[in-house]
Amino acid sequence: MTAPVALLLSGGMDSVTCLWWLRARPGVEVHTVSVDYGQRHRVELDCAAELSRRAGAVEHGVLRLDLAAIGGSPLTDPGLDVPDADAGQQSATVVPFRNLLLTGVAAAWAEVRGIDDLYLAPVRDDCDAYRDCRRAFYDSLEQTLRLGATRERPVRVHTPFVDRWKHEVVALGLELGVPYERTHTCYTGRRPACGRCDACAERLAAFAANAVPDPLAYEINAPAQSEDEP
Amino acid sequence: MTAPVALLLSGGMDSVTCLWWLRARPGVEVHTVSVDYGQRHRVELDCAAELSRRAGAVEHGVLRLDLAAIGGSPLTDPGLDVPDADAGQQSATVVPFRNLLLTGVAAAWAEVRGIDDLYLAPVRDDCDAYRDCRRAFYDSLEQTLRLGATRERPVRVHTPFVDRWKHEVVALGLELGVPYERTHTCYTGRRPACGRCDACAERLAAFAANAVPDPLAYEINAPAQSEDEP
Repeated sequence: MTAPVALLLSGGMDSVTCLWWLRARPGVEVHTVSVDYGQRHRVELDCAAELSRRAGAVEHGVLRLDLAAIGGSPLTDPGLDVPDADAGQQSATVVPFRNLLLTGVAAAWAEVRGIDDLYLAPVRDDCDAYRDCRRAFYDSLEQTLRLGATRERPVRVHTPFVDRWKHEVVALGLELGVPYERTHTCYTGRRPACGRCDACAERLAAFAANAVPDPLAYEINAPAQSEDEP
Repeated sequence: MTAPVALLLSGGMDSVTCLWWLRARPGVEVHTVSVDYGQRHRVELDCAAELSRRAGAVEHGVLRLDLAAIGGSPLTDPGLDVPDADAGQQSATVVPFRNLLLTGVAAAWAEVRGIDDLYLAPVRDDCDAYRDCRRAFYDSLEQTLRLGATRERPVRVHTPFVDRWKHEVVALGLELGVPYERTHTCYTGRRPACGRCDACAERLAAFAANAVPDPLAYEINAPAQSEDEP
């Protein structure tokens, strides 16, 4: 008897680690879903599809959500520049209510399939810049989903990594054999990755903290690559 | 000094009545927003745009949200039939978490504009078939939006008609001079309207309860048209 669960899979290192973590659990049948929300780094959608296949997920859905029309973030508006990490402007990359919307469409997709358990992979580092990565937010969203579901039923929103730092998630993923060279992180969407945006900087620091080289190709010989301090 | 407010405008009679109600209030600057979610009755989007102009709204936004890809409802899936009202299957028309998603994209659109007050027009009649029309749901969603907003700020989700029956909303709209002949209601999306689906049946009953003929054209001489019982 297997229990079906849905996983919101971005194609980034955290959700892919969550996918490998879920597949390692006995009796779990993983359905993955990605959202094409007009992200500049849409290459991550290809990574998500490929990694879902590699992980042996039962199915992989792709939902469209046009957040670009809402605007306000360089992650969806090609007219705005992605700030470098050293500019200290990660909050400028916020897409308003992105996680509410992504979780909402994934929950709808899960509901149609009769799946009550939805997994997401925010990590502790995200909570500073993104208020919608905090567990307090997900507790409230879970309650809202329960109240709004078509039939009275439990909707569980699981965030197993919300109290773990990104370098701890990488440590777990290295144990589980996550193919990190196939995940995508860079906000600019370029491959090789820019190595300078907030997302690249956090990724590099997480590998450095594990004293393991990041297997991803970077445009520049990013300084954090050659250091091994946390 | 005017206060900007956002209104989620479907083009149906309830949200259009809310638009006329808002424009009658002094000092309110109305920004309307519609969502193209793949609805079969997409003619309502044209109605929304036209009525927004007629009402003198400051701007009218249209956001896309592909709920059709999620499936599960005849309102977004042309392969499923819209049930007749006498089949007693309105719950089959539920689009999972539609109001969470519609409110979420409208709230994101409002946040980018610095608007804290968002209006929606669910009515009391909706609450039976649609759990996400209840005020308990909107209270929880309002709290979730506050927790997830980019900056700590109040996000107010107003549902001024949630305790009013549809016939009371029509009575208000008739007083305010709402051009009901330009609103759209029918689930099938046809004009003239089918007169048989749940949406048509409720609309006809609301006019009948006010002993006023519905100015909309119907395909059939719908029975409720010639009756005046509530």
